[in-house]
Amino acid sequence: MKRSVFFISDSTGITAETLGHALLAQFDDLEYRQVTIPFVRDSKAAEDAVDRINAAAHEDGARPIVFSTLTGSDLHRAVSASDGLVLDVFNAFLRPLEHELQRGSAHATGRFHGLVDRAVYDARISAVDFALKHDDGEGLKGYREADLILVGVSRSGKTPTCVYLSMQFGVRAANYPFTIEDVERDSLPEVLKAHQERLFGLTIAPERLCQIRGQRRPDSRYASLTQCRMEVRTVESLLRRERVPLLDSSTASIEEIATSILHRTGIERRVFP
Amino acid sequence: MKRSVFFISDSTGITAETLGHALLAQFDDLEYRQVTIPFVRDSKAAEDAVDRINAAAHEDGARPIVFSTLTGSDLHRAVSASDGLVLDVFNAFLRPLEHELQRGSAHATGRFHGLVDRAVYDARISAVDFALKHDDGEGLKGYREADLILVGVSRSGKTPTCVYLSMQFGVRAANYPFTIEDVERDSLPEVLKAHQERLFGLTIAPERLCQIRGQRRPDSRYASLTQCRMEVRTVESLLRRERVPLLDSSTASIEEIATSILHRTGIERRVFP
Repeated sequence: MKRSVFFISDSTGITAETLGHALLAQFDDLEYRQVTIPFVRDSKAAEDAVDRINAAAHEDGARPIVFSTLTGSDLHRAVSASDGLVLDVFNAFLRPLEHELQRGSAHATGRFHGLVDRAVYDARISAVDFALKHDDGEGLKGYREADLILVGVSRSGKTPTCVYLSMQFGVRAANYPFTIEDVERDSLPEVLKAHQERLFGLTIAPERLCQIRGQRRPDSRYASLTQCRMEVRTVESLLRRERVPLLDSSTASIEEIATSILHRTGIERRVFP
Repeated sequence: MKRSVFFISDSTGITAETLGHALLAQFDDLEYRQVTIPFVRDSKAAEDAVDRINAAAHEDGARPIVFSTLTGSDLHRAVSASDGLVLDVFNAFLRPLEHELQRGSAHATGRFHGLVDRAVYDARISAVDFALKHDDGEGLKGYREADLILVGVSRSGKTPTCVYLSMQFGVRAANYPFTIEDVERDSLPEVLKAHQERLFGLTIAPERLCQIRGQRRPDSRYASLTQCRMEVRTVESLLRRERVPLLDSSTASIEEIATSILHRTGIERRVFP
């Protein structure tokens, strides 16, 4: 049976999506079609959302699941009258918070991911700029300003991890890929030695690396399992010898890799976006 | 009164943070200190978390607020016995979902942001690679593979928006900054004309642009209010004339800009990370 899942919000819908996915991940083998409806800020938009939910109910022959972060009570009431199972993400928690904080909440639309804290915005942009300027062995002179320098073989997950660290946590992360020459030399490149305490290694299962590289350069020596095995083995043993912390990215999500790095290094995030 | 807010998870803590921030944004003038404790997967880690919550309660003279996404009932029970107001993000919704889906949930730790869907991972990495290769007017030849080409004056928010679109939605977004020469010519650059239907403009209040550019190059002509006003006015009128959709990034978060662009263009996301 097909299911439709809706994420409905007066803002971006990202909170509803994040919580909804986490909850649905608890159910094995659940197949569903996802629809996000952001910026539901007036009764016309709420009615359109209800029409889409009801159409999905009819088409699926099953009740759609609706994660709602609508804050306005009129909008919420409208969506609750749909044919979906409407889970009210906010109101379940606002009451205990109001009681504890001894004040009323605004019940205002678009509060989150809408109102901008300029200091947070600037810190994120500055960190993203840093990640882009110090990607893939670029900008070596800026390494002294890095919170972290990710090292590893080509395609071990360094770039997306640095970008995520900058965007989500405001952390200034550079990355340096070990070239074939670095691997063959089997010692830390000179440019990294001055920053050894800020190095963090990513490694990956050779089979997975071979698959990722194969998408990029099929049938190349670069993507061959023999080459991947040699590089991974050499770099892992080098990093262990140099006491650089090491994380296996093979089966982890970008979020998990980034969080693990902060957790293990104790690097403080600069922003809560 | 200072308040401490904890985000406690057996996985990354990102779900707890996202929901917690959205809820706390509903309370005006609330000052709080934030602590995320990820990877709470055994009783030792749960006890450590309880110690930190209780120490904060003592220090603040106020009950800490604890957003928990712990799935294991033993771990959850341990944290609930702390001195904090523990808000159980998951269990409030798992029961109605179990009833609706007519099956039990796994109550398993680390399900979200932990189990990796390789297709999603590969699509995200590929989109992030695309954004980096087509940043700031680079990689013009790849524009035919772009879902979207963001245009605007320098520092109008194009780069972080493209990076976010790629990471969060798997969308392939390039960006092209209007140079002084482009602005003076007052017509769409040749390279963009072939892709006009995929262009999307970002604009920004001249005062905000002046502030952002000033952080980068203080006291430059580039950062002067006169220059910023001229560039913004010229580019806005050019984009309106060419019927390129336009969004003002001045007071919006990166999340809101990115979501608005998908909403207005109808571009479909490739991933739900």
